Amino acid sequence: TLAAPVFAQDSPALNWRLASSFPRSADAIYNGSVNFAKYVAEATDGKFNIRVFPAGEILPALQVLDGVQNGTIECGHTASYYYYGKDPILCFDGAVPFGLNTRQMNAWMRHGDGLKLLRAVFDKYNIVNFPCGATGAQMGGWFRKEINSVADLQGLKFRSSAFAGAVLSRLGVVPQQIAGGDIYPALEKGTIDAAEWIGPYDDEKLGFNRVAPYYYFPGWWEGTLQVSLYVNKDAYATLPKRYQDIIDQATATATLDMLATYDAENPAALRRLIAQGAKLKSFPRDVMDACYREANALYAELAAKDPAFKEILDNYTAFRDELVPWFRVSEGSFDQFMAAVTRR
Amino acid sequence: TLAAPVFAQDSPALNWRLASSFPRSADAIYNGSVNFAKYVAEATDGKFNIRVFPAGEILPALQVLDGVQNGTIECGHTASYYYYGKDPILCFDGAVPFGLNTRQMNAWMRHGDGLKLLRAVFDKYNIVNFPCGATGAQMGGWFRKEINSVADLQGLKFRSSAFAGAVLSRLGVVPQQIAGGDIYPALEKGTIDAAEWIGPYDDEKLGFNRVAPYYYFPGWWEGTLQVSLYVNKDAYATLPKRYQDIIDQATATATLDMLATYDAENPAALRRLIAQGAKLKSFPRDVMDACYREANALYAELAAKDPAFKEILDNYTAFRDELVPWFRVSEGSFDQFMAAVTRR
Repeated sequence: TLAAPVFAQDSPALNWRLASSFPRSADAIYNGSVNFAKYVAEATDGKFNIRVFPAGEILPALQVLDGVQNGTIECGHTASYYYYGKDPILCFDGAVPFGLNTRQMNAWMRHGDGLKLLRAVFDKYNIVNFPCGATGAQMGGWFRKEINSVADLQGLKFRSSAFAGAVLSRLGVVPQQIAGGDIYPALEKGTIDAAEWIGPYDDEKLGFNRVAPYYYFPGWWEGTLQVSLYVNKDAYATLPKRYQDIIDQATATATLDMLATYDAENPAALRRLIAQGAKLKSFPRDVMDACYREANALYAELAAKDPAFKEILDNYTAFRDELVPWFRVSEGSFDQFMAAVTRR
Repeated sequence: TLAAPVFAQDSPALNWRLASSFPRSADAIYNGSVNFAKYVAEATDGKFNIRVFPAGEILPALQVLDGVQNGTIECGHTASYYYYGKDPILCFDGAVPFGLNTRQMNAWMRHGDGLKLLRAVFDKYNIVNFPCGATGAQMGGWFRKEINSVADLQGLKFRSSAFAGAVLSRLGVVPQQIAGGDIYPALEKGTIDAAEWIGPYDDEKLGFNRVAPYYYFPGWWEGTLQVSLYVNKDAYATLPKRYQDIIDQATATATLDMLATYDAENPAALRRLIAQGAKLKSFPRDVMDACYREANALYAELAAKDPAFKEILDNYTAFRDELVPWFRVSEGSFDQFMAAVTRR
């Protein structure tokens, strides 16, 4: 007998392109897309082939959303908080100030209302979004001078993500938008006073410690960064159900890989940075409190202007306020005990 | 032209059975296997069908390893520390006292040497192992009386996992092996003094708070529990490469689901338990210190007896000691700030 003719329809040979917002050199985050494409190929015997292009090759880093929305490309790998200027609501898919940590974000997306709410947001952009990577809590960045009080923020030229910049500008900071590759010379010349990038593993490659020795934590604007896969909605609709499901599983697997890479590589990178003179510092509590107060004030303003922002903010905040006290109990006390008995 | 004849071999219709070590009622952990099977079916258009059986239906809960090893069944979903009596080395695949937390375990498995080392261990049991779920840090359990000092452990009849029991017996505890369903009556009658199960979401269903009001944390013997899928090695070898890869992705996806379920459901369960009279308590620091000291002494004895145990212990401990200080920095300080400003 002949093989069933549905075969050709069930397992079509497809060639897609993926535009990344990240350069190859930021390998931990860039490889989120490479691993995703590899997993899709493996699960389809190579029939669904997705070719990954680093930032700038077919699309500029910050135009991945537009490219996927327009159908210029079938899919993209990006950070949703890059699009704060388009609509701050998009940041809930990536990171927002004083937001969820990695585990809490995973819980909100997969067991809370996160994915459902964000799918509705991205539907207006003709995009189906998937979590595809996480960085863990990021660092607060590299500063040429110490930050000892809120007054030290006055006039500080700080390269940061847009949402963090919007909070910090309320405290006198002058936010700077500078591409990753241009940060080092700007810091060296003193054109800017401080810059945040990701964390030790990525920051080490750019050598910031040589020109801005104070390395602050925590990066309160990124308790985690959830990295995203965007799929053009029309392209997605043409896929067999099986390929759609495979995208879901491939992105989940790539998420665990990226988190494992950061968690395994950051510690040694931080030790090397300190050995080379980086001075590790925590933001003073009154600076943290002032930033938290201004973040809440900005949230209130954004919510007053946009009911859609308010709806997702309320859901996200209620989830956070429910989970945070629980994470102090067994998880937090276990981590603190292990930290107390582990000396390096 | 005819369809390529390899098609039938590439996508064979397979029916496998999976034995779970967990009852249906422990739905968060039990569903790890249900979700895994669902994901495999979705990625193969239902051709690779895995039927899940709860604990006791085709194999007793604690005989899943034997059943997979012997080929009685193709695969099983279990906790590797159940097999401490067979060989303590197996516990590194599940949880060991004062070990890695969930993120650190994921990093050791996927980016460190964890999976490679554990695959070599399980190879001797004719098993290919996969991480397939995580619970997060578990609770320390339910106690009829307060534990205020190491002396209070003397003679305490405590139902716990075997590795924890081996540590605690060095401090005078009398470890008890009791199946989940028998814990409540034993606690009620006073046959035992204390019992640990999992965490609020599962514990609430068994009603321990009504007979043992002191709810202690942290469960230092389970900074996380990594739940495992065991696949019979011969059955695994018959699979097309694509099906093998799909198992990998399906287990990763099921892992994120289980963690999301626990992290989202535990907080409200804990609040309900407290409202019903549970008294939340942390183990005193000197009790924690004594347990840590005895755990290390037991590790040293097991390592002296078995070079294979020593090899994996050394790798695991070095990884832990590298990661734990890093997790204090941005991750830990972010979580602590959020806990400080989040009041319930």
